[in-house]
Amino acid sequence: MDATQNSQVVAPAEGTAHGYIKAKDKELLHKRLRRIEGQVRGVQRMVDEETYCIDVLTQIASVVAALEKVGTIVLKDHVEHCVRESIEKGEGAEEKIEELTAAVERFLRV
Amino acid sequence: MDATQNSQVVAPAEGTAHGYIKAKDKELLHKRLRRIEGQVRGVQRMVDEETYCIDVLTQIASVVAALEKVGTIVLKDHVEHCVRESIEKGEGAEEKIEELTAAVERFLRV
Amino acid sequence: MDATQNSQVVAPAEGTAHGYIKAKDKELLHKRLRRIEGQVRGVQRMVDEETYCIDVLTQIASVVAALEKVGTIVLKDHVEHCVRESIEKGEGAEEKIEELTAAVERFLRV
Amino acid sequence: MDATQNSQVVAPAEGTAHGYIKAKDKELLHKRLRRIEGQVRGVQRMVDEETYCIDVLTQIASVVAALEKVGTIVLKDHVEHCVRESIEKGEGAEEKIEELTAAVERFLRV
Repeated sequence: MDATQNSQVVAPAEGTAHGYIKAKDKELLHKRLRRIEGQVRGVQRMVDEETYCIDVLTQIASVVAALEKVGTIVLKDHVEHCVRESIEKGEGAEEKIEELTAAVERFLRV
Repeated sequence: MDATQNSQVVAPAEGTAHGYIKAKDKELLHKRLRRIEGQVRGVQRMVDEETYCIDVLTQIASVVAALEKVGTIVLKDHVEHCVRESIEKGEGAEEKIEELTAAVERFLRV
Repeated sequence: MDATQNSQVVAPAEGTAHGYIKAKDKELLHKRLRRIEGQVRGVQRMVDEETYCIDVLTQIASVVAALEKVGTIVLKDHVEHCVRESIEKGEGAEEKIEELTAAVERFLRV
Repeated sequence: MDATQNSQVVAPAEGTAHGYIKAKDKELLHKRLRRIEGQVRGVQRMVDEETYCIDVLTQIASVVAALEKVGTIVLKDHVEHCVRESIEKGEGAEEKIEELTAAVERFLRV
């Protein structure tokens, strides 16, 4: 993973995106995930450098929260685009809603 | 972050480690954190490649669980080493226990 | 809260329910919430009787999971009924989706 | 469960308590658990009265947070009393610490 590769991230214009995540959110998510990746490396460094455990734990808790926040952004895009579309078209809405709830359950681990 | 740098991770022998995380766990944590780092990059790729949102969410939930597992390993080492030592020496045990509970609360976000 | 009062819980036939929770789920939720209420009382008893802390903690973790499960049932009904309807009618869908994501965030506490 | 029964809750003086939860916390926990019990009944009422789902979800999320807070109080007492004692006596500390971490893992469900 190097800078060049990252600069190739394609964020298609809102109107042309064919995927499920809004172009605007794609960039936002990318930025957040890059920061999270850096935070994970930071935790590795903290472990290597024998940083005080409580500080390591605080940092891990903060990465977890950041990741869950990313999850809710993806979730929202999914409802806005994919679940919404299936309801509007009257095609597979039940399945999409089932899937959505299952995803939330996986997050809550219930 | 490249392979060379990672191979320099020092895992001192159990007896010589002066930090709070057991040498054995340091290596385990390092391995897990490397995998988590890779998973986070995987999520970035999924977002870029417009992978189906539900699959992105499943992956994020899995990274969250992996990170929390890392947290519990650090927590255990902390109790085994640092909290334990403060109790054995009769020095600052209250403070250590307070700190420990606060760390768990930050994880549960209560 | 006594048994008589609880037996008055009205579970209108599926077709006549005007609320957001399906009649079938209303009964299911009621049963689960009654059990959860009993479990909370059980935790009180455990505290009073000085049950071993770890067993108290296990019981609390189990009540938390049961409550979150109830939450996901309500969430699903909400998407199936209320979010869906707003999308079908093309009225206030954005707001409903915003509200839904905010509810999930409150659960995850992010 | 009636008022009379609840008033019988015994909160032994700090010095005489033989259990693992501090007398002071026993009363605090009892008060919190009573409130949580009431909140669970409140959720039942909300479901019966077809309260708007999002409000039901908000209430459930709040009960979950309250329960987890109770969990951290029990956890702290456990470390302060039981884990501490086992370390001081040099008896079964490993087992106690193992048990503690397992309890936190059950809370995080990892």
